[in-house]
Amino acid sequence: MSDTPVPLVLHEDRLLPADPAVRAVARRLYAEVAAAPIVSPHGHVDPTVLVADEPFADPAALLVTPDHYVTRLLHANGVALDDLGIARVDGTVTPAQPREVWRSLCTHWAEFRGTPSRYWLETELVQLFGVEVRPSAQTADALYDRIAEQLTTASMRPRALFARFGLEVLATTDDPASDLSAHAELARADLGGRVLPTFRADRYTDPGTPGWAVAVAELAHVDGVDTGTHAGLLAALRQRRRAFLAAGATATDAGPVDAGTEPLEPAEAERLHAQALRGPLEPAPAAAYRRDMIYRQGLESAEDGLVMQLHAGVFRNHHRPTFDTFGPDSGHDIPLPTDYVRGLRPLLDAVGTSPTFRMVLFTVDETAFSREISPLAGFYPSVFVGAPWWFLDTPDAITRFRSAVTDTVGFSRTSGFVDDTRAYCSIPARHDMSRRVDAGHLARLVVEHRLDEDEAADTIRDLVGPQPRRVFRLD
Amino acid sequence: MSDTPVPLVLHEDRLLPADPAVRAVARRLYAEVAAAPIVSPHGHVDPTVLVADEPFADPAALLVTPDHYVTRLLHANGVALDDLGIARVDGTVTPAQPREVWRSLCTHWAEFRGTPSRYWLETELVQLFGVEVRPSAQTADALYDRIAEQLTTASMRPRALFARFGLEVLATTDDPASDLSAHAELARADLGGRVLPTFRADRYTDPGTPGWAVAVAELAHVDGVDTGTHAGLLAALRQRRRAFLAAGATATDAGPVDAGTEPLEPAEAERLHAQALRGPLEPAPAAAYRRDMIYRQGLESAEDGLVMQLHAGVFRNHHRPTFDTFGPDSGHDIPLPTDYVRGLRPLLDAVGTSPTFRMVLFTVDETAFSREISPLAGFYPSVFVGAPWWFLDTPDAITRFRSAVTDTVGFSRTSGFVDDTRAYCSIPARHDMSRRVDAGHLARLVVEHRLDEDEAADTIRDLVGPQPRRVFRLD
Amino acid sequence: MSDTPVPLVLHEDRLLPADPAVRAVARRLYAEVAAAPIVSPHGHVDPTVLVADEPFADPAALLVTPDHYVTRLLHANGVALDDLGIARVDGTVTPAQPREVWRSLCTHWAEFRGTPSRYWLETELVQLFGVEVRPSAQTADALYDRIAEQLTTASMRPRALFARFGLEVLATTDDPASDLSAHAELARADLGGRVLPTFRADRYTDPGTPGWAVAVAELAHVDGVDTGTHAGLLAALRQRRRAFLAAGATATDAGPVDAGTEPLEPAEAERLHAQALRGPLEPAPAAAYRRDMIYRQGLESAEDGLVMQLHAGVFRNHHRPTFDTFGPDSGHDIPLPTDYVRGLRPLLDAVGTSPTFRMVLFTVDETAFSREISPLAGFYPSVFVGAPWWFLDTPDAITRFRSAVTDTVGFSRTSGFVDDTRAYCSIPARHDMSRRVDAGHLARLVVEHRLDEDEAADTIRDLVGPQPRRVFRLD
Repeated sequence: MSDTPVPLVLHEDRLLPADPAVRAVARRLYAEVAAAPIVSPHGHVDPTVLVADEPFADPAALLVTPDHYVTRLLHANGVALDDLGIARVDGTVTPAQPREVWRSLCTHWAEFRGTPSRYWLETELVQLFGVEVRPSAQTADALYDRIAEQLTTASMRPRALFARFGLEVLATTDDPASDLSAHAELARADLGGRVLPTFRADRYTDPGTPGWAVAVAELAHVDGVDTGTHAGLLAALRQRRRAFLAAGATATDAGPVDAGTEPLEPAEAERLHAQALRGPLEPAPAAAYRRDMIYRQGLESAEDGLVMQLHAGVFRNHHRPTFDTFGPDSGHDIPLPTDYVRGLRPLLDAVGTSPTFRMVLFTVDETAFSREISPLAGFYPSVFVGAPWWFLDTPDAITRFRSAVTDTVGFSRTSGFVDDTRAYCSIPARHDMSRRVDAGHLARLVVEHRLDEDEAADTIRDLVGPQPRRVFRLD
Repeated sequence: MSDTPVPLVLHEDRLLPADPAVRAVARRLYAEVAAAPIVSPHGHVDPTVLVADEPFADPAALLVTPDHYVTRLLHANGVALDDLGIARVDGTVTPAQPREVWRSLCTHWAEFRGTPSRYWLETELVQLFGVEVRPSAQTADALYDRIAEQLTTASMRPRALFARFGLEVLATTDDPASDLSAHAELARADLGGRVLPTFRADRYTDPGTPGWAVAVAELAHVDGVDTGTHAGLLAALRQRRRAFLAAGATATDAGPVDAGTEPLEPAEAERLHAQALRGPLEPAPAAAYRRDMIYRQGLESAEDGLVMQLHAGVFRNHHRPTFDTFGPDSGHDIPLPTDYVRGLRPLLDAVGTSPTFRMVLFTVDETAFSREISPLAGFYPSVFVGAPWWFLDTPDAITRFRSAVTDTVGFSRTSGFVDDTRAYCSIPARHDMSRRVDAGHLARLVVEHRLDEDEAADTIRDLVGPQPRRVFRLD
Repeated sequence: MSDTPVPLVLHEDRLLPADPAVRAVARRLYAEVAAAPIVSPHGHVDPTVLVADEPFADPAALLVTPDHYVTRLLHANGVALDDLGIARVDGTVTPAQPREVWRSLCTHWAEFRGTPSRYWLETELVQLFGVEVRPSAQTADALYDRIAEQLTTASMRPRALFARFGLEVLATTDDPASDLSAHAELARADLGGRVLPTFRADRYTDPGTPGWAVAVAELAHVDGVDTGTHAGLLAALRQRRRAFLAAGATATDAGPVDAGTEPLEPAEAERLHAQALRGPLEPAPAAAYRRDMIYRQGLESAEDGLVMQLHAGVFRNHHRPTFDTFGPDSGHDIPLPTDYVRGLRPLLDAVGTSPTFRMVLFTVDETAFSREISPLAGFYPSVFVGAPWWFLDTPDAITRFRSAVTDTVGFSRTSGFVDDTRAYCSIPARHDMSRRVDAGHLARLVVEHRLDEDEAADTIRDLVGPQPRRVFRLD
């Protein structure tokens, strides 16, 4: 390792395919959408950040601590979560200072080689902060100072960035109990784009979630609908869906561990509801209750038109000691195989051809794209293939996704890109990655004479705007 | 969208890899087989079409309505099956007029971008009908008229096309109860190639199939073998296998939902048989009966030498309301993961190294290629890897297949391409696609110095003729 | 087929990507490591071969008979195992003569087209034996004579090859009951590199293995630790781990059929142990016993620091008649899907963040790389992604592996290449293949501007030496 800093440069052809003929077409296709506004129909940015519009605290709080893609790989490479600024649930340990957290990232920069996290960070460092040297132990402090200084400028406040990012729509993820006041305030603000809530009810629909009974009891207070019965909980959720709709929501989001939607007899649902309020259910009845609830929420979507996003197949909180110390979302949710075909059948039997029902299916098991999700989306008018997501929103995985899905359903049954991120500043980099990779895929089809270039250009224009607007009912 | 029609052209290098060096080799390899006769050992063309040799009715009846690849994606994009010319089982609704059906396809042409269905249709439109403009709402009527006119010419009749397509062998799929008279007639005709029946017994081997008891009872009438017992049904099926053999069949075909082959004790099989004749079995005993039947049919194949084709792992008729209205094969059969390893073990233990037994394993779960099917075919002399099929007979999926399979078993353990189609006019386009894609795969191996070009040329020549003739015992 | 022998040449760019720009970078990256010493932390070479240092018997015994990659594909193509020199367990049939075995391979050379087995053999034939013509029925005898003659030279003896291969570390696989005397002798010899034992305890930890009770009883004699109880067996294994550590071992190896690690209550373990000593357990309790044992061995690794290698998901001895005749490892072990996520949870809950515990996870189901193994290795500091292995150590599968894994965890969480081979002479060819393929993958990242070339060079240097030394604690 030399002590001379290495330049950090973003090449204009980054992510485009190597072959010169394909790259030439890809450049032209990318140019069609490089500057298009961003439609972000699924993400996890906290709306109160936009309400408050305060400067971001420091480089670590902006770029490291909240990004569990980054913290998990640092943890795997031996950095304790305490040293990454992550707070313990019991507050017994003081998290590391921001400068030390930032230094950890820079010191471990080589371990991020080839990962999308590094690609996004590099894009942000260059495009937002004008960084010109590669992060390393040697450059960490200077970079910290540079970024910290820039964070004090008005142009780096959340709302200024919203405009600069070209955000046309930004959907957040919200608890049904939320009073949506942040969204009401943002609707009155002049952001240059819309911020919309998304109805995420897993805490109430899955009695296997810790704290379910308390959450259900508290939901009753929001609208004064008694949740002591299953029918009551359904009514309370329906009431909240109405409130979300009124606040501009166009979609719900659910992340059950499997894709089951087997309904229960109402009496059985009531029995389980009463039992679950008294104490935790065994895994099998808890799953039965949850699957029925997913089914019921699907029927609600067929009624009220909220697009149902479903991402099944993740084992949450795999490492119990880390969960006990740091709580959920601490980096050890691990994908599982999932049966979408049998699981979704009851719901699709009921409303799969209903014109009001719409469902976007996400997976972190990429084998499901060609085997299950595309074949379903290639028949049911209600089903769309969700963009590759989480572990799969990476250049090669997106390429594999397009290859797997295009063969069965073309482009029209896919959702358009979703960034699914908490990391606000990474949103433009993520959408740009997707546009570059789609340009590369389409360019290959053109050069292999499977698609004319005018159609490829039309397709990529559609994918970044009209398609997600249609799929998520944003128009 | 402009109103000027866009030209429709087939580029001579279509589907060949983009890299110039690879493409140059691929061109030479493709040239070796571009004009080779077609061996089609697995398909679903109705033999009576060739017997009657009448002109095809209209463009929709030829190219749209019977092709569920096409109708399912139109359905997903909002076109009702009634509007695609598909008849309801109860006849309550008059299906749409052919011209309207054709117009639906043309109007939705953009939604087929990148799909193999569109690739095949384009090939047919250009090569069979001399179409020179891209289908669209604007061009739909003129194209309809052009195609309809051509369908009246003698050169577009089924037998004339048989010769023009260069069909050396065309296998159909036939019910064991068939009297095979169509095949007898075709054997006497001078088609320039053979049409062979294939023994497809799922209706009789799976008591979970609706109408099983009736079908089994009726089978008794064909040869006068009592099917009231399990032994009787086996004897009746054996008799029909003999008749198929006599009519030139070289293979059977079976599509159970899983690959299980666990045999039952004869007494238990008789008990289930008697029970199933009285009324539908529960899922578990029905599956046990079916697995035993697959096992027994495998033993029959080891006796009579009919090649056993097995394609497991499809959930049939996923959307019950559509099934109730339009019957089976209406576009909502969805793949499932399948355990070939444990499932096939009883049968392979019994006859896996028998020189008379031969089995071709198909999958629509492409993960099985490298994990299960290739490892099985790389040990058992009886097992061959079936070509990628159904959702997987597409340029990218075939490329992935070759990549996954070649590493484990080379080329010699693969079946050669099967078109598996009802869409008669798409047969040449499908085989041509396969030849182009295989040329591309082999060319890459050549340019990466993994195979000499003389061997690649020998391999591709083998794959289109000698290999399927050997695998399917067509010589 | 012409009778003129075809030249056999190894191209200097073999396996490098076709695109000229990518290939140019790949050449430079490959040049960084082409001559690097070989670190082989996981293999199956018999250490007594190196102790005896006798000339290899003949071409068949060196290159065909012991290599089940080769014999299984010959068997699939119709060659009986007897004709490949494989001895029956009961000695009833005299295996074929070496010259005939060799001739079988040459005659079936075309059936190996595109396979890694052929690639390795070609490399060995050219680099070790100076062969200049392609194997075939015509050239078989001359090649046999040439190789046989060379095998008599001093430079072809095992120890001379050890130096010539540039082996820095060669790990073998050893039974816990081994007295490790071969390793003691090799430690005293001046080989120019280390030969290390690996602790492989499946025979003792899985009561479903035939002969388990006898093996467990005999283990008691090695160190005089009574194995009549579960606690006793654990103590005896612990004693042997100590002996392996003293002999230089740094790792264990386990190949259970699934990845389960659910612990049992000690009393239940004792009960099953006693029962298993009396006679074979049913499958379910045998599996429960085995999973507990894997858990216990994991805790041992967290104590003594031996790196735990786990490769789950293989159905052993699929074809019973072949197993009965030829014993295990006769070519019909077939991969299965495996649940690493739920399976490993108990063990990772217990020691997943322990600094002494380390686990390398192998799979032959490549879908697990992106879905399960990378996500686990991207959080747990103890978990590393094992190199693609067995059916997957091939050019295309390694490329797919890098594509799937790099996106989630970069390069730092991968094990480095393991050759996993019994075929001593193939070791350099296998490592060279891996280096070439990694160079190609890294070069693509460089040309797609996802990694600077200095970092790619640093990465490939790391992957062939420092990384496996770190992962396997070889320093």
